[in-house]
Amino acid sequence: MDLRRLAGDVRVKTSYAFTERDGERILAAILSSEDIWRVIDLSDVPMMALCEAIRAMRAAGWVEFTESRIRLTDPGRKLVQELGIAPALELRCGRCRGRGLELGPVAKIADRFKEIARSRPEAIQTYDQGYVTEESTLYRVAFMWARGDLAGKELLVLGDDDLVSLACALTGIPRRVVMLDIDERIVQFVRDVARAEGLEVEALQHDLREPLPEELLSAFDTFFCDPTESLRGFLAFAGRGISALRGPGSAGYMGLTRREASLSKWRAIQKELISSGAAITDIRDDFHDYVNWPYIETMRAWGHLPVKRVPGRDEPWYRSALIRIELVEPPRVENVRLEGDIFTDPEAATT
Amino acid sequence: MDLRRLAGDVRVKTSYAFTERDGERILAAILSSEDIWRVIDLSDVPMMALCEAIRAMRAAGWVEFTESRIRLTDPGRKLVQELGIAPALELRCGRCRGRGLELGPVAKIADRFKEIARSRPEAIQTYDQGYVTEESTLYRVAFMWARGDLAGKELLVLGDDDLVSLACALTGIPRRVVMLDIDERIVQFVRDVARAEGLEVEALQHDLREPLPEELLSAFDTFFCDPTESLRGFLAFAGRGISALRGPGSAGYMGLTRREASLSKWRAIQKELISSGAAITDIRDDFHDYVNWPYIETMRAWGHLPVKRVPGRDEPWYRSALIRIELVEPPRVENVRLEGDIFTDPEAATT
Repeated sequence: MDLRRLAGDVRVKTSYAFTERDGERILAAILSSEDIWRVIDLSDVPMMALCEAIRAMRAAGWVEFTESRIRLTDPGRKLVQELGIAPALELRCGRCRGRGLELGPVAKIADRFKEIARSRPEAIQTYDQGYVTEESTLYRVAFMWARGDLAGKELLVLGDDDLVSLACALTGIPRRVVMLDIDERIVQFVRDVARAEGLEVEALQHDLREPLPEELLSAFDTFFCDPTESLRGFLAFAGRGISALRGPGSAGYMGLTRREASLSKWRAIQKELISSGAAITDIRDDFHDYVNWPYIETMRAWGHLPVKRVPGRDEPWYRSALIRIELVEPPRVENVRLEGDIFTDPEAATT
Repeated sequence: MDLRRLAGDVRVKTSYAFTERDGERILAAILSSEDIWRVIDLSDVPMMALCEAIRAMRAAGWVEFTESRIRLTDPGRKLVQELGIAPALELRCGRCRGRGLELGPVAKIADRFKEIARSRPEAIQTYDQGYVTEESTLYRVAFMWARGDLAGKELLVLGDDDLVSLACALTGIPRRVVMLDIDERIVQFVRDVARAEGLEVEALQHDLREPLPEELLSAFDTFFCDPTESLRGFLAFAGRGISALRGPGSAGYMGLTRREASLSKWRAIQKELISSGAAITDIRDDFHDYVNWPYIETMRAWGHLPVKRVPGRDEPWYRSALIRIELVEPPRVENVRLEGDIFTDPEAATT
């Protein structure tokens, strides 16, 4: 068995275009850590493909597992040496945790936002929820502010289990904040907090499979959305955001992960974003850390995990990039109804 | 005069798709700084369009200049207040300067690299040269290392006035480093340093308008290039890099600026990169700071500047993003000869 054959086997068993490079990334990650969640985090290979690849590596005698650890065997060590694979190296800045920026004026609202988030509705699997840390949300807001997309602007948040609408409203600088969510609990939470805190946030219950209400079309300067990771779901949600933008100069923000989206999917998404009239101005990988959700043992990938250890709540392994686009042409997306399951595709791991 | 009409006027006078948002960005920058170089830096509007817009803003009575300053007039202040334009806010992390990472093991070679760079050939206008700070080059190398594109890998540097080949070779971790440059001075410098320092770098004099030598095609894991900013030139240089890559899993790095490239051009470039078989994995804006070159008073944009002050050598205003792509399909680019001027287009400012 060699890496090329192993990659071929994984391609046959999954629908994922697994490369030798993906195999290298997994081996480099195992060289750096024996913890399965760190390996998933460091390797940047979609989780379902990674599980299949590790199974094949075990069959090849390259890796072995204990109840809580994964490590290279002697033949595995020999292989990585022959191939010149070095341990995965993470050089995240110790101050900004890799995000590249300071909170600046957003630091002033940090305590209040964290206090509010303490009583937030818990993430549920029905809507593929899973929220980012409060710190990630605050840095998001700082990023939008620094890009000029917040002060004096009208903002639409599509799907808001991260409570971005509240964090933005707390800064007091946007001209208007509207949020949509399918989950009545979140809509009600945002309404209650807004009333109690004296914040202006319009919170609407809305299923993004349905067309956007007419009055939200071409009405915003900025949108934010952290879509579900299936290709169809991602494009649908991002498309709703784009159709809500005024035109050239308007900006959109999205979260996109490597954990459930292959680079082939990234490419398909990017192609679509560009076709819709936008340029991509920023991709900051690992900008968002997710809080581990309570349904981890019933998520799709659980049964495939080689080492079944439940990660601690504050042991982030699921991260996503922050992507910013800016329209350079009038938006080109259709505001039509979407039928069927938009949450799952072969790479989905957490639904 | 209002911002919409002003944007229309600038569009007519330049070939640039100037938006109201661009106008806002310039006004927000002037609210933050009276220094023309800071305004250029903060506004992220291509310099030639920015100069035209500022001229129009002066005609409209919104801004005024002194010999070294630019500032809003009273009517200008009233306008930005009415429009709700806030001062440009830069939230660069104080530790990593916005790059998001630590130098890590690259810190060990920093002194030696800076010592080497002290005797580098000076930037000349003939080849549209202008090099990044030594710190920028070192962070680049750290970024490539952290992404797994350096250790045990074969690297091609296309155009190397930044001395990336030497910095990479100094780390001792790549398997092979090859550099190409049109400028015999730089090729000779890299050869001399490599010999003196005992580094393995293959340095070849090559004009990138010519097809790549056969033996460099499909031969590398990673390429680096900081192309000229004209659309045709950028795509040609990036295309050479892509044609030198092995295939899926291979990665490419490019510098791309907002100073001489509109977001329309960014979008055209991104479309082409994606068509050639790649996904874009990272775009970190303002990753590179450039050292001010000696020919600043003869560059194309100089005559258009509203305030003609020569910036200090260590007063960076020209910055560019670091873009990383990864092939997900076999590369699709042609290795053909390019005729004519590939350096200038209407947005070019420094040639």
